[in-house]
Amino acid sequence: MIAIEGAYVLTMDGPDIAAGTVLVGDDGAIAAVGAQGAVAVPPGATTVRAAGHALLPGLVNCHNHAGMALLRGYGADLPLRRWLEDRIFPAEARLRSDDVYWGTLAAAAEMLRGGTTCFADMYFFEDEAARAVDDAGMRAVLSRGLVVLDPAAAAKLAEAEDFCRRHQGAAGGRITTMMAPHAEYTCPEPYLLEIDAVARRLGRPLHVHVAETAAEVQGSRDRHEGRSPVRYLHDLGLLRPGTLAAHCVHVDADDIALLVASGAAVSHNPASNCKLGSGVAPAARLLTAGAHVGLGTDGPASTDSLSMWETMRLAGWLAKAAGQDAAALPARTLLRWATRDGADALGLGGVCGRIAPGLRADLCLVDLRAPHLQPCADVPAALVYAATADDVAKVWVDGVPVAEGGAPSRIDTGRALAECAVRMRRLIEP
Amino acid sequence: MIAIEGAYVLTMDGPDIAAGTVLVGDDGAIAAVGAQGAVAVPPGATTVRAAGHALLPGLVNCHNHAGMALLRGYGADLPLRRWLEDRIFPAEARLRSDDVYWGTLAAAAEMLRGGTTCFADMYFFEDEAARAVDDAGMRAVLSRGLVVLDPAAAAKLAEAEDFCRRHQGAAGGRITTMMAPHAEYTCPEPYLLEIDAVARRLGRPLHVHVAETAAEVQGSRDRHEGRSPVRYLHDLGLLRPGTLAAHCVHVDADDIALLVASGAAVSHNPASNCKLGSGVAPAARLLTAGAHVGLGTDGPASTDSLSMWETMRLAGWLAKAAGQDAAALPARTLLRWATRDGADALGLGGVCGRIAPGLRADLCLVDLRAPHLQPCADVPAALVYAATADDVAKVWVDGVPVAEGGAPSRIDTGRALAECAVRMRRLIEP
Repeated sequence: MIAIEGAYVLTMDGPDIAAGTVLVGDDGAIAAVGAQGAVAVPPGATTVRAAGHALLPGLVNCHNHAGMALLRGYGADLPLRRWLEDRIFPAEARLRSDDVYWGTLAAAAEMLRGGTTCFADMYFFEDEAARAVDDAGMRAVLSRGLVVLDPAAAAKLAEAEDFCRRHQGAAGGRITTMMAPHAEYTCPEPYLLEIDAVARRLGRPLHVHVAETAAEVQGSRDRHEGRSPVRYLHDLGLLRPGTLAAHCVHVDADDIALLVASGAAVSHNPASNCKLGSGVAPAARLLTAGAHVGLGTDGPASTDSLSMWETMRLAGWLAKAAGQDAAALPARTLLRWATRDGADALGLGGVCGRIAPGLRADLCLVDLRAPHLQPCADVPAALVYAATADDVAKVWVDGVPVAEGGAPSRIDTGRALAECAVRMRRLIEP
Repeated sequence: MIAIEGAYVLTMDGPDIAAGTVLVGDDGAIAAVGAQGAVAVPPGATTVRAAGHALLPGLVNCHNHAGMALLRGYGADLPLRRWLEDRIFPAEARLRSDDVYWGTLAAAAEMLRGGTTCFADMYFFEDEAARAVDDAGMRAVLSRGLVVLDPAAAAKLAEAEDFCRRHQGAAGGRITTMMAPHAEYTCPEPYLLEIDAVARRLGRPLHVHVAETAAEVQGSRDRHEGRSPVRYLHDLGLLRPGTLAAHCVHVDADDIALLVASGAAVSHNPASNCKLGSGVAPAARLLTAGAHVGLGTDGPASTDSLSMWETMRLAGWLAKAAGQDAAALPARTLLRWATRDGADALGLGGVCGRIAPGLRADLCLVDLRAPHLQPCADVPAALVYAATADDVAKVWVDGVPVAEGGAPSRIDTGRALAECAVRMRRLIEP
């Protein structure tokens, strides 16, 4: 039993608790939550004294290609097409399966030390990503990205299905799976339908890029009788409860209505959308319309940083600037998107994303004593607008400590980064 | 003599040096810069081994109200007018001069540990701000903000003039001064002209808010025969080389042309402009037009964080998203704005902002070994898109170490933050 005592607790499940006690059972579940003094701490519990800290659910990153940590910063500031065609695709063509292990492990190190306990991934060699997630002690929703450009499309689909069968519930339940048609523009209709048939047969949701760029939307309209990617995927039956639609930058009112009506969730990835020049998703309108929204970083090659703190505030900043409304997307909404709503978007609403009895103890303890967080008029505002990964003092997944004082507990970070440096050179300097 | 050896040196004065040596003389000036091995290190020099680090000029924050650290996060997410009128103005009315000392000292602690060595300030009780800057060992360009709302406008103008006379060149040259008419909408024409006359008499530049919100521009057009704030201030002769125009969010092509032709500099403050819902300044167009641009955070009450790292990347992200162009405002331009061009904007181009022999040794050493900076394909991109204040290993001003390992050297940070916490409560809970 662990007793975390004295923190400002953002349960994301009711009002905040100014000085709370959270008990974590030996089964890795949250056993009790309440005001300090109102929760009896059993004798023998390990106490974590947390005054001056905020405790919140571990952050949930809804869209990543974690293995791309191997290509971090490569081709920065190039126009999107040159970035992809001249840099990323040639480098990825040289990827080996063990590269993805080390890239994902390095990304996990960065995420865990910054308080992110769960992420949704779409990449290649996902068996290796699963091994890294297991070793790191993280939670993840993994998917093998599928594009038909590949001559071996059918074999890849079989591989993705097999991956889901073997990994669903793996790593003691920390790994779940999705089927991932990459996007409308990379998967022709028969392939989309085949992938969807497998997903339905397995009972697994879909993870798909949707309306990331204006060019993608125009292409969809050209290919599909004027239909946007949202409308097209909806008409094919691919948008439904459980579907995770990444980006949704270029969506109009009809698209937003379809997203809401379908029950699909959106991963809003503002840093990637900015850095790649894709545009700004209408996040405030998605919120108002009642869409399910989580936040994501996208892969470390497109955003450089995997900080969910920066993702939260960028989402807020963009919405406030776009609407010239300081009240748009307030701090509490951004925290909810980054925790509870993100977990819901990944089908993990009953597992994590809130601090409530019975849920898994995926927790993030933030030290509020750094100069950029003091004096503190408003804890949610301080977390959203000023906290960084380095303020994270301690992180648990399933009640197990996975990072402390900026260092992942179960990863040899120095070795992982050294492996990535060597492998990056092989990938980008052939 | 200090010898910083082995860092990746961004001189901002020529090509980067992949592994350089920078010598700092006992007079606080940079003595030599070159490739490691090509610069002779005198016997007896104190060596700083800096492999795995980047060395760049200390960052320059071109617009701040540092004393507002006392109100950090207060009224977050309120619409601008309610934020100002219901929260900030009433709290500021209770400010005492020693509050500004502690607020500015806390802000200096945050800035120094994050690599910012110089800032431009506009606030009240600037004698106390000057004392904090001197104690912290920082460089600053200070100004007493002037608004005519105050019945004592004439006395305040005399105070501002007296402040400039007493503090220009103070703290061993680390403090310089400006005259600061707050804005067109807070200073009627006779007051603007009086302030300007004093500035010209003293030979000091102006620091003024310009075109921060759409409402300000509309108000100016209503008050001044259709003229925008830029046009109006230009017509009054207030825009000239040396003038620091903060914000310039709502500027059209004519305004940009006037800014360029006048030789005035712009402080682009993207986080404040976003968080307060002001909008997005046309930074890429300012660049293309040839405007002098530096970067600023604005006060910690409006942005929460004073991180120039986040300011750089937000400026880049906004420009790329607004133009749907990943190549807009590349990392190297953002670094230049945050160093050399910022120093130029504050009239300190001959003093700091570059790593070149003869300039003052205001330096920032960044540890590149954290997971979010590795592997590293591109040092400027890693710094701009992923580095945080906590990656800053060591900071010098005038060759004197002022922060190391996240801790300011000359500030009792714990005491400063404790003072601020007590004072915040008095200001916001009267």
